[in-house]
Amino acid sequence: MIEDLVAANRILAQEGVLDGWGHVSVRHDRDPARFLLSRSLAPELVSAEDILEFDLDNNPVDVPERDLYTERFIHGEIYKARPDVMAICHSHAPPVIPFGVIDIPLRPLYHRAAFIALGVPIFEIRDAAGMTDMLIRDPALGRALAQSIADKPAVLMRGHGATIVAHSIPRLVGRSIFLALNAKLQAQAMIMTQGGPIKYLDPEEARLIEAREGYGLGRAWKAWKKRALETR
Amino acid sequence: MIEDLVAANRILAQEGVLDGWGHVSVRHDRDPARFLLSRSLAPELVSAEDILEFDLDNNPVDVPERDLYTERFIHGEIYKARPDVMAICHSHAPPVIPFGVIDIPLRPLYHRAAFIALGVPIFEIRDAAGMTDMLIRDPALGRALAQSIADKPAVLMRGHGATIVAHSIPRLVGRSIFLALNAKLQAQAMIMTQGGPIKYLDPEEARLIEAREGYGLGRAWKAWKKRALETR
Amino acid sequence: MIEDLVAANRILAQEGVLDGWGHVSVRHDRDPARFLLSRSLAPELVSAEDILEFDLDNNPVDVPERDLYTERFIHGEIYKARPDVMAICHSHAPPVIPFGVIDIPLRPLYHRAAFIALGVPIFEIRDAAGMTDMLIRDPALGRALAQSIADKPAVLMRGHGATIVAHSIPRLVGRSIFLALNAKLQAQAMIMTQGGPIKYLDPEEARLIEAREGYGLGRAWKAWKKRALETR
Amino acid sequence: MIEDLVAANRILAQEGVLDGWGHVSVRHDRDPARFLLSRSLAPELVSAEDILEFDLDNNPVDVPERDLYTERFIHGEIYKARPDVMAICHSHAPPVIPFGVIDIPLRPLYHRAAFIALGVPIFEIRDAAGMTDMLIRDPALGRALAQSIADKPAVLMRGHGATIVAHSIPRLVGRSIFLALNAKLQAQAMIMTQGGPIKYLDPEEARLIEAREGYGLGRAWKAWKKRALETR
Repeated sequence: MIEDLVAANRILAQEGVLDGWGHVSVRHDRDPARFLLSRSLAPELVSAEDILEFDLDNNPVDVPERDLYTERFIHGEIYKARPDVMAICHSHAPPVIPFGVIDIPLRPLYHRAAFIALGVPIFEIRDAAGMTDMLIRDPALGRALAQSIADKPAVLMRGHGATIVAHSIPRLVGRSIFLALNAKLQAQAMIMTQGGPIKYLDPEEARLIEAREGYGLGRAWKAWKKRALETR
Repeated sequence: MIEDLVAANRILAQEGVLDGWGHVSVRHDRDPARFLLSRSLAPELVSAEDILEFDLDNNPVDVPERDLYTERFIHGEIYKARPDVMAICHSHAPPVIPFGVIDIPLRPLYHRAAFIALGVPIFEIRDAAGMTDMLIRDPALGRALAQSIADKPAVLMRGHGATIVAHSIPRLVGRSIFLALNAKLQAQAMIMTQGGPIKYLDPEEARLIEAREGYGLGRAWKAWKKRALETR
Repeated sequence: MIEDLVAANRILAQEGVLDGWGHVSVRHDRDPARFLLSRSLAPELVSAEDILEFDLDNNPVDVPERDLYTERFIHGEIYKARPDVMAICHSHAPPVIPFGVIDIPLRPLYHRAAFIALGVPIFEIRDAAGMTDMLIRDPALGRALAQSIADKPAVLMRGHGATIVAHSIPRLVGRSIFLALNAKLQAQAMIMTQGGPIKYLDPEEARLIEAREGYGLGRAWKAWKKRALETR
Repeated sequence: MIEDLVAANRILAQEGVLDGWGHVSVRHDRDPARFLLSRSLAPELVSAEDILEFDLDNNPVDVPERDLYTERFIHGEIYKARPDVMAICHSHAPPVIPFGVIDIPLRPLYHRAAFIALGVPIFEIRDAAGMTDMLIRDPALGRALAQSIADKPAVLMRGHGATIVAHSIPRLVGRSIFLALNAKLQAQAMIMTQGGPIKYLDPEEARLIEAREGYGLGRAWKAWKKRALETR
């Protein structure tokens, strides 16, 4: 599980989804009240020895105090609110940022991004806390973000980025990559048609795709992982 | 032939045409009722030992059961319907996806994409099978796709990707790359002119270009292959 | 300090912010009337032995005459006018150039580019010197640029590029990268909405972000530096 | 001279200006009636031993027949018509192609592309030869292209690419790179303003920039060359 978490960090950095400040966590497989997350480190530099165990109140367990991600509250609060969620990614992928600051919703037009049909709300931090420095830097903001994502697979964060959740690490990596790719493709289609009609996935198509848990993700996962770990 | 098929997989992965789920096949050079296709593997990882032989009913020949591409039906059904086709590529190249979901047709404006003048239909899977998970996962869907491509060099698949065919592997690789490049250039010209006039290739220009089978593809093929196989 | 200056040159070249003609300087940490800048060399090639010491009149100190950057006047004149500035970058980052030639101002929509809220004027060299070859090739033009940037964090230079200042090298590198990224994201949002409404950062949000000097830049700085120095 | 010609091939391939079919030549420094050009090879693969000598009628001199570029006529015919031209590049750089098929002219908005102010005509091969396969495959087409470029620094070729000329190899490489970059920036500015006003370089600014032969190209040339030759 730690190996996959390290791989997820490296893959998403290599794919341009995570910059130096993104992070990825996974719920502990033997204790649902714990999750694993790196100490404060750029994802491309994360190794097994950097992974720490946290309780759902976002406190590191059994380790002397080390440098922690400011926004670790994203993780604990969503794991608390969403027993179905096994892995979480907080990203600043450039293609999704514009969709957080305009009034045109992100919609799925590409089959690997069918999960978008389940809904991708926008988190407006002003509604939760007024004027802030935009970061999820305490449990209350983490809870507000968890409320915003509700039962959805992802939430855009206005002027900031996105948080994506999934039932497994490979699924999370796929969703994080295809959220950004769908954003790019939808923006392109919107611009090409000057706001004209676009054939999005039908909700039933999206449901049928989502029902096939994993979409054969193993095939790409193997290639992503090899590439990410080799170019260490 | 196997070496060229492996090279095609690697080249198209490296050029950004194939993601972890695309695939490339070639018709057997001594038995037109057989084709070669990798076992289920991301194109960038395909090696000679992964190549399997299939009959035109998409069943692997003479090998114990292994993990196969879900969408292998694309290949057999097109080889059955199109005796002229020697190689097939199924891609999810990002620049072509938007053209599958809007009402503006892809048209050739760049000489290396002249084959687009022969016609690039859009396959609407809903017309063939109603609500699906978008994948060509059985012979009937493969036949529907083969009917849609008819005698054309490529077909866009709405919300999914494209399938490209050709008389040889290098030609297939060229078409797959230049379908995506033309899509990018046409989108750019459309946006720059806000939908104003664009000088596409004249049908006769396209015919003259296509008549020169291969367009000197050997020159680029050599460079693509060297780059793709060296960075293994 | 020299190591960080070399790293800044390499990082900004690797991130696509600096081409072969950009440059980065730092004010001397023990003598505010001196600054360090490479001899005339593409940023990606700069090493410790290339760093020269200059006085604020842009003359190299204690070294035999060597080949110098034509536009070194940018640095001395801004250090003279702005005692708060510790590091300066002159870039031709492609995404910012269009904002220098159109009438739509750059505005912050991404939290890491909050400093844009402090104001990013456009330097029109014609106002300062009429018809020129666009370069800041003498002290008078350097002073005109320093007047234009005034107390702001950056200035766009029409038809040319940008100059960015900061209180430290890591902050300068962050600002230089995020000026370009915000330009890309704002352009994208503008195009997607066809000029419709965009939710920029509130001035108070920007102030709160800026008040947290550094934004945890150390985390990305470590990754950027490792990548830039390893691929030497 | 051969070393610089090889470097130019490699640099322009690495910078994305030349695909597998572009080519670069230089006029012989001791015999203005000769030029040097690679045998038919993708630019990224060109080495010193591939360089052949040609007369201005595009025939290789003193070598047994080898595989030659189909479009070598571009070079001889321009060298004949333009005694001032010392180096020629034929490119298919993607950003310039759209400007060859629309009615909006390329104009200089970035100082390193000031040479565009001298004029960049569009070569319409239909005017010269009616319906063709778009290639400059004989002396007559070469002459037509030479007439179209006239005394200008570059010509766009509709549906095909561009040909760029200069007084030296480094200058040619700079012009080839910045023609594409200016195309990208102008397209971006046009789209951002929805066709609104853009501040192009003043003709006098362009003249002053051009008057400084070389723009300090040596600085970037050194970095480009190192990168291109190291990653052989």
